[in-house]
Amino acid sequence: MPKNLTFERLLPGDDLGLGVRSGAGRWVNKDGSVNVRRLGVPRFRSYELYHDLITMNGYWFMGLLVTGFLLTNLLFAGIYLAVGMEHFTRPGGAGLLDKFLDAYFFSAQTLTTVGYGHISPGSHLASAVAACESLLGLLSFALATGLLYGRFSRPHAQIRFSAQALVAPYREGRGLMMRFVNRRSNQLIEVEVSVVLSLRDPETQMRRFHALTLERNRISLFPANWTVVHPIDETSPLAGLVEADLLASGAEFIVLVKAFDDTFSQTIYQRTSYTAAEVRWGARFLPMTKVELDGSLIMDIELLDASEDLA
Amino acid sequence: MPKNLTFERLLPGDDLGLGVRSGAGRWVNKDGSVNVRRLGVPRFRSYELYHDLITMNGYWFMGLLVTGFLLTNLLFAGIYLAVGMEHFTRPGGAGLLDKFLDAYFFSAQTLTTVGYGHISPGSHLASAVAACESLLGLLSFALATGLLYGRFSRPHAQIRFSAQALVAPYREGRGLMMRFVNRRSNQLIEVEVSVVLSLRDPETQMRRFHALTLERNRISLFPANWTVVHPIDETSPLAGLVEADLLASGAEFIVLVKAFDDTFSQTIYQRTSYTAAEVRWGARFLPMTKVELDGSLIMDIELLDASEDLA
Amino acid sequence: MPKNLTFERLLPGDDLGLGVRSGAGRWVNKDGSVNVRRLGVPRFRSYELYHDLITMNGYWFMGLLVTGFLLTNLLFAGIYLAVGMEHFTRPGGAGLLDKFLDAYFFSAQTLTTVGYGHISPGSHLASAVAACESLLGLLSFALATGLLYGRFSRPHAQIRFSAQALVAPYREGRGLMMRFVNRRSNQLIEVEVSVVLSLRDPETQMRRFHALTLERNRISLFPANWTVVHPIDETSPLAGLVEADLLASGAEFIVLVKAFDDTFSQTIYQRTSYTAAEVRWGARFLPMTKVELDGSLIMDIELLDASEDLA
Amino acid sequence: MPKNLTFERLLPGDDLGLGVRSGAGRWVNKDGSVNVRRLGVPRFRSYELYHDLITMNGYWFMGLLVTGFLLTNLLFAGIYLAVGMEHFTRPGGAGLLDKFLDAYFFSAQTLTTVGYGHISPGSHLASAVAACESLLGLLSFALATGLLYGRFSRPHAQIRFSAQALVAPYREGRGLMMRFVNRRSNQLIEVEVSVVLSLRDPETQMRRFHALTLERNRISLFPANWTVVHPIDETSPLAGLVEADLLASGAEFIVLVKAFDDTFSQTIYQRTSYTAAEVRWGARFLPMTKVELDGSLIMDIELLDASEDLA
Repeated sequence: MPKNLTFERLLPGDDLGLGVRSGAGRWVNKDGSVNVRRLGVPRFRSYELYHDLITMNGYWFMGLLVTGFLLTNLLFAGIYLAVGMEHFTRPGGAGLLDKFLDAYFFSAQTLTTVGYGHISPGSHLASAVAACESLLGLLSFALATGLLYGRFSRPHAQIRFSAQALVAPYREGRGLMMRFVNRRSNQLIEVEVSVVLSLRDPETQMRRFHALTLERNRISLFPANWTVVHPIDETSPLAGLVEADLLASGAEFIVLVKAFDDTFSQTIYQRTSYTAAEVRWGARFLPMTKVELDGSLIMDIELLDASEDLA
Repeated sequence: MPKNLTFERLLPGDDLGLGVRSGAGRWVNKDGSVNVRRLGVPRFRSYELYHDLITMNGYWFMGLLVTGFLLTNLLFAGIYLAVGMEHFTRPGGAGLLDKFLDAYFFSAQTLTTVGYGHISPGSHLASAVAACESLLGLLSFALATGLLYGRFSRPHAQIRFSAQALVAPYREGRGLMMRFVNRRSNQLIEVEVSVVLSLRDPETQMRRFHALTLERNRISLFPANWTVVHPIDETSPLAGLVEADLLASGAEFIVLVKAFDDTFSQTIYQRTSYTAAEVRWGARFLPMTKVELDGSLIMDIELLDASEDLA
Repeated sequence: MPKNLTFERLLPGDDLGLGVRSGAGRWVNKDGSVNVRRLGVPRFRSYELYHDLITMNGYWFMGLLVTGFLLTNLLFAGIYLAVGMEHFTRPGGAGLLDKFLDAYFFSAQTLTTVGYGHISPGSHLASAVAACESLLGLLSFALATGLLYGRFSRPHAQIRFSAQALVAPYREGRGLMMRFVNRRSNQLIEVEVSVVLSLRDPETQMRRFHALTLERNRISLFPANWTVVHPIDETSPLAGLVEADLLASGAEFIVLVKAFDDTFSQTIYQRTSYTAAEVRWGARFLPMTKVELDGSLIMDIELLDASEDLA
Repeated sequence: MPKNLTFERLLPGDDLGLGVRSGAGRWVNKDGSVNVRRLGVPRFRSYELYHDLITMNGYWFMGLLVTGFLLTNLLFAGIYLAVGMEHFTRPGGAGLLDKFLDAYFFSAQTLTTVGYGHISPGSHLASAVAACESLLGLLSFALATGLLYGRFSRPHAQIRFSAQALVAPYREGRGLMMRFVNRRSNQLIEVEVSVVLSLRDPETQMRRFHALTLERNRISLFPANWTVVHPIDETSPLAGLVEADLLASGAEFIVLVKAFDDTFSQTIYQRTSYTAAEVRWGARFLPMTKVELDGSLIMDIELLDASEDLA
């Protein structure tokens, strides 16, 4: 089982830290992030700057760009005032505010390289500062170009998982089922899935992890939805368990999906988990697809969670 | 057979929706898209924006850029008119149209950061609006740069498949054959192919999928054409079938090609399918290559579909 | 042997075209390109444009950029002349050449968005043309930015192969050896190599391909040189052959190298081949590395072809 | 053992150069670079230019950009002076320094495409030079944009290894242990590790390499730290050895880590090594993680090297 999660033995010997001692909470959140808090990480790390700028919220990012623009102009307006507005071809207003605003908008015209010229540097000193500012402007916008591209070209899996996992009839017995769809219209191919069950040992309070056998763990095309099925047969760690057992042992089903994005030639990963409380017993999923009269298939993404309780 | 399509068991238990119930139509279109229509997808999805801008038709994309440019100028022309053209160093014409056009072209000069300066903001208010516009202009062109790069750098397989699949003599028996070429001059390597047959069960009207054994499913270099061969021996699901059987059972042969693009270090995929009506029985492909007198090889891409009927 | 070249069976049944009928020439050139000429490829193919612009010679590419700049200015100079130079704030000289040059350099100042303003559009018509040109300028430079990035960021393997392959003593017998180095200072890892022998059948004049067993076909680190060895034992297709046999049968050894570029996270491929005339019998490579007094290792890339004949 | 380092047989037959003859020094440095010095590499190699610009120190890179800007302006200032400042609309000062500075700042305004216009080319000759300069400016900033993007988008593994490897109690016996964390907050997945022991043969002074069996060599998620364990059982090359033996034989443990960066869809590699002097015997690592009262996990990266000696 080399492709399955097996962190129960991640930590050897006496080094029992992670994965075994974890307490009441869930390991993996619904959004796929892992519940580990890190200490000792310095607040500013240059090697994280790009990562942070790329992954931060889009509105914050735009705000950062605009704030940077405003502050840089403020800085250069200060420098131009210090140089003296008499170094410019159109000295502008006499009051300090007028001078400041003249300097500020001259700075903006220089930083963006618009350079109308109705105000322009009239001395070599002012020219030198303006040359620095225009170089800074160009490099900043080169950076912004790269960041914007980096932001929207990075892989974005949009796999949506059913809110609940179901224990449903499967062949002669029962199976644990969860399903997911690709919310995007791009084609995902060579999709792989693995499911791991985490259980707390009632005696030692240590966690044990079990890779669950799946009816199918790889498909070549993923045009519609996929219902992942773990058959609860005699080899399953769920054999003989009932709902109360899972709740009592703090069970958590961790789901890992890997796929290849055909459009952008990128491998993408997505994770989620289901706690015992998110497993419904004795229910089954309703179909998400139907065949039209003309033989074509329709899938309704809104039906992802559609299910029915069984008598 | 882990590398073959096997979606016949994609949907477990009672969840019979896709791949099994599909009716008369073909599953995979000639261009490789899959015949599933999606409902419940919101009209505007921010996570699709980049995808849509990257994959849309090139003429539409250029039109979108130009339209965006025109509309942005219209918006800012309106703002400048609202501010009042007397806030500019050259008020220009007296009529409203003249004022509007002055504002419009000042906007264009600001958005593109040309900034000739024959019209320039003469008040702090006008300067502030112009500063906003020039910042917007730079960020927009940063975005456009990223989108243009994203568009032409994304993987473009240009594999062309023969229009028909042939049932041709092969060794002692017969084989199902289709062939394809790389239309681009870049080198594709480590090319893999798999073929899946979809048949409708005459009783249940359910679809069954069969991965077909191929004479060869991987080559290291792909300098010319590749004729994919499925030998129709006793292990083949086609054994004993005739043309009418395939037509009656709505047969469809789905072909998946995976390759590595040597030039851009990207994995590319392409798909197509052949319905029963696109299979010709008792014909064979003619060679696409010939050896010149000097020993060099010539391949004529136009001959991709060249074939001859056998008596 | 799924990882080896096996194009001897690339073409099935009666479709004997490529790889089997090829005549006197070599299959793979020293630089790794394959000797197949393509017919039926249209002269202009939009899907090749990016590929061509990315892979063309750097001087040609710069020339293309400059030529495009000059011609675009010529085009717009013509438009400005047609509009009439009286539509500009500084009509400039009276002669046609003067007018043309005024228009030409105004165009250049607009296309590059410098926009000094000593000549500027004085009418709405001239403004409209200039707005179009500045938009075109920005989009062109967005394209140029993408192309420049695409050019220097694409994978460049710089593996250099020894000019000759040697048949040298190896263990108790002999081995066919070729060696290669990474000319770049980046780290290549997980390097894989495969060697295929192509021989012409003396009777049918058909080519046969043989994957050669290698002493080692994969290394994890590639800090220095690698000598690839095919042991000529009784299982080798070279067993019992002498130099004249290889020459007579038009032998060609095709070498494929695959590696992962640690610096840029890209998989790279390189190929070469050795004809029978490029195999030297009874010689061995001299070491390219030596140990310094301080225990450090030195590799001299110039010694790649250093070898000595054996008595 | 296809996934393990095995360079002991990298060099065949009589070609004993690398990996076997190496003397006293370590093979792999702590930072993962390999101790091989290259001769015969030309000083300037165009194919290395991008690599060098991408991997050079960030301050040097910024310095290079600024220096390039200053020198280009110097060059063009010289050209403008040669043309003569009387070719410009505002001849400026009479002295040579004034003329030079006028030319210099006009150049800066042209190169950055600010183009205020208070100085502008007044003749066709001056216009032609300025057009060249503005084109050069745009292309240079296109290049800078690409380089900046290339610099911050390239893979940066930030795996930190423990300073020492420990020989600690493990199950019934002992094990060699080293551990590492991901310093970045991005998610690494599908992490693989391999460890190779290099020992000097006391008789021949040749190096032998041994791939070490690991308790675990692959995990799917890497949320916290990973302690790599090589159990020292009877099959281990360390069986029966004591600290002095390792020191005497110049032992070096080479560690290779491979992982997939979930955020940027890139495969990353990192290496390090431990010499015999960096192995501490009879100590064990202290846990880096603890469980909070609320059941959540905390990992303190500062504790990476925390260990205790055993009595």
